[in-house]
Amino acid sequence: MSITPIIQILGFLLILLSLMMTLPVNLLAFGGGAQDWWAFVQSALACLTVGLICFLMTPRKRRGLKQREMFLLTVSAWIVIPLFSSLPLLLSDLDLTITDAFFESISGITTTGSTVLVGLDYLPADILLWRSIVQWMGGIGIIGMAVAVLPFLRIGGMRLFATESSEWTEKAVPRTNRLALGLVVSYLVLTLACIVVYWVLGMDLFNAINHALTTVSTGGFSTSDSSMGQFQNLPILAASTCFMILGSVPFFLFVRLLNGDSRPLLIDRQVRFFVQFLLVVALIICSYRLLTNDQAAIAGFVETFIKTLFNVTSVVTTTGFASEDYTRWGALAVVLFFFLTFVGGCSGSTSGGMKIFRFQLSILMLREQMRRLLHPNIVMARYYNGRVIGDEIVTSAVAFSFLFLTTLAVVAAVLATLGLDLVTSLTGAATALANVGPGLGEEIGPAGNFAALPDAAKWVLMMAMLLGRLELLSVFVLFSRHFWRS
Amino acid sequence: MSITPIIQILGFLLILLSLMMTLPVNLLAFGGGAQDWWAFVQSALACLTVGLICFLMTPRKRRGLKQREMFLLTVSAWIVIPLFSSLPLLLSDLDLTITDAFFESISGITTTGSTVLVGLDYLPADILLWRSIVQWMGGIGIIGMAVAVLPFLRIGGMRLFATESSEWTEKAVPRTNRLALGLVVSYLVLTLACIVVYWVLGMDLFNAINHALTTVSTGGFSTSDSSMGQFQNLPILAASTCFMILGSVPFFLFVRLLNGDSRPLLIDRQVRFFVQFLLVVALIICSYRLLTNDQAAIAGFVETFIKTLFNVTSVVTTTGFASEDYTRWGALAVVLFFFLTFVGGCSGSTSGGMKIFRFQLSILMLREQMRRLLHPNIVMARYYNGRVIGDEIVTSAVAFSFLFLTTLAVVAAVLATLGLDLVTSLTGAATALANVGPGLGEEIGPAGNFAALPDAAKWVLMMAMLLGRLELLSVFVLFSRHFWRS
Repeated sequence: MSITPIIQILGFLLILLSLMMTLPVNLLAFGGGAQDWWAFVQSALACLTVGLICFLMTPRKRRGLKQREMFLLTVSAWIVIPLFSSLPLLLSDLDLTITDAFFESISGITTTGSTVLVGLDYLPADILLWRSIVQWMGGIGIIGMAVAVLPFLRIGGMRLFATESSEWTEKAVPRTNRLALGLVVSYLVLTLACIVVYWVLGMDLFNAINHALTTVSTGGFSTSDSSMGQFQNLPILAASTCFMILGSVPFFLFVRLLNGDSRPLLIDRQVRFFVQFLLVVALIICSYRLLTNDQAAIAGFVETFIKTLFNVTSVVTTTGFASEDYTRWGALAVVLFFFLTFVGGCSGSTSGGMKIFRFQLSILMLREQMRRLLHPNIVMARYYNGRVIGDEIVTSAVAFSFLFLTTLAVVAAVLATLGLDLVTSLTGAATALANVGPGLGEEIGPAGNFAALPDAAKWVLMMAMLLGRLELLSVFVLFSRHFWRS
Repeated sequence: MSITPIIQILGFLLILLSLMMTLPVNLLAFGGGAQDWWAFVQSALACLTVGLICFLMTPRKRRGLKQREMFLLTVSAWIVIPLFSSLPLLLSDLDLTITDAFFESISGITTTGSTVLVGLDYLPADILLWRSIVQWMGGIGIIGMAVAVLPFLRIGGMRLFATESSEWTEKAVPRTNRLALGLVVSYLVLTLACIVVYWVLGMDLFNAINHALTTVSTGGFSTSDSSMGQFQNLPILAASTCFMILGSVPFFLFVRLLNGDSRPLLIDRQVRFFVQFLLVVALIICSYRLLTNDQAAIAGFVETFIKTLFNVTSVVTTTGFASEDYTRWGALAVVLFFFLTFVGGCSGSTSGGMKIFRFQLSILMLREQMRRLLHPNIVMARYYNGRVIGDEIVTSAVAFSFLFLTTLAVVAAVLATLGLDLVTSLTGAATALANVGPGLGEEIGPAGNFAALPDAAKWVLMMAMLLGRLELLSVFVLFSRHFWRS
């Protein structure tokens, strides 16, 4: 294993990052102006310098990365990029501690959306925009990783999605490049469409851009403490619901769509189950609200349903917007939102969580199990999206789920040791690992934020966000002794 | 499928039950006397009558049960027996509602140990003894089922423990009978030993008998609202810890021990992991208590450790005794006790929960997965207790875990709909499904009880207890259309 190609790629990514850092200043030069332009210039320069050194000082050899190098690159990129992304926050007039700046940056790049900043409504425009841009970068980063890297690395059953286009051989490079281009184009088109729709529906351009960046990336940063509640606008909630769902769909289906083939998107089993699931859960909560809550009943079925679907979608897609404090919708809503935190969107999208396909594989396995109880010698082939599923994929998907829940228990225990109560520890760990954003309870619930937590708890949550974002195993494998053995 | 053999066996079980019902009256005739003797006589007669009718009116054919019949028998037995077991409670002077009597009886027979009775200290002795006897019967019932029925039925990876002795062929009947006898003898010996030890350590005979019956069965009913806390006696807690652990060990290992072979018990991987796990968790909580809690520090390390280990063991073995309100040990303890509720003891024992071997299989799979990340083409055989483990066993163990957690979510959601708060719904569902006993929170925590819950919630919890006790799948399979198809 050689680390020079890794440093080189990190250098390249830092150069790109420094370019992104000039965006808030450039965009806002026409509007209100960038209050913290000096912070951004400094950060961009630092980023560029380090990037150039890394990129130019390493010998250039054209060869593909070995598997171990890919693991190391993945993990180090997801640490180095947020480290540098926190610079503008740190150098701005906000007077953030290093912990808070880094928390915000990690929460952004992992598209989690938990925030330690209070009074978002009064923050300078450039800082708000930078937070949104960081989330947007995180979104495209994870799509690239999920489609190109993870299936190849056989993480958590992702090989289910290893099509021809994700084989990482020398020959496959042009094909991979074409796929990468398709992904970037899909992501850009989706973002632009979202900006336009938000703008048409009544947001000003600044808010439209910010929220589009954090909707499509299923991140959930907003420009106000009251999140999407600030607009009090049903059509915006409906549109946002649609774009969050689109951001949680396997992006290679969009690439097929760009190539003129819409069928895969429409018949994909994961997507169909995902949308049905959202509708059913929203209907349950909505009926419950109408039956128990006077205010919701007065608002009428359509309004209640749209608001419910919006908040359900926001949590399941791991975005984390809120239109109001949904923990006031009664006990059933609270319990369901607790479990929804784990679900996540589809694989190969910007969303986090345990992912729909893992639940589908479990259901598949359970059905098989039920039939085998009655017919012990029955021979069955498992199918998913028309492909036969071997035991290896099922067991690796399931190993992931086990690891996810075990890690959750450990993180929650550590948070409790740091003094957080049961609900805050449990939902804090869950929301960080699943990259959702808000937890439950007074403190970190949809009406609260993470500002008042002790610094140590913030660091634990950051680690959890990264672990969750990288599907756990790609991080844990670095700690196995087999990894570092010749 | 024919239901006459099922009715016949149920009749036989009811006749046995009627005999057990005379026990409290007989035992207490020498002591304070049985206050509710008329209730017991009535119940025993009713039970005997129905039992004799079922047993004698059905034609006697000597043939083994078919698989479907075995499922139906299992589920109906675990409904009919508690139904009749609740009669003495219902006919006594306690003025219990049908819901409460049945709740107490189901909680007993499933060895859960949640109670709706307040003021246990003032209850008549015969009622207390009957509760303990019901739990004791549940214990031997589940051991028989786990060793003789479930492995054969391939439920949740239990086939891992299908030795020659659990093959259910005509030829194997004598061998099975020998195994059954060994199990009953082990259970009796363990119970007697526990009575003697408790008595020697200072309990009066009545309490020694009651607590031995509910310790060995990992049930957790007590004769006082303060549970084991009533004795304020460290040696009793230590002894109880040992017997709870013994009750959570695979009982076929005791049968081997009776045959003079102690090696299997000592080297069994499940048992070793189980004991290590208890010690490690107790050490963690104990250290935390010593570091954060003054009272514990004053009590000294040994006392704190024994008390901690006792309560940890009580929850993990799904017994549910408490020596004090462990939810006051700080946030870490609460979070850990939440997760401990799920763990459970070893398979083939009286304990419930998800069971140690399923976690071990998951860890095994995870390790395999980690190695495969680095060496994609590696071929590995999985070993467990010296046996090669096929994919079928792993997937069925895992399908069980998924079903367990999904059922938990549904039960918690229904409880929330009935008005219970997040912590009560969540831990109530968990403690019922895992057959532990106490939950967390003010209401159903170790210092509270289930009396004040709405009746509907009690029925939901009863269902959950039965589901958990029967490893879920043996119940759910009855609802599959394949089951009822010719």
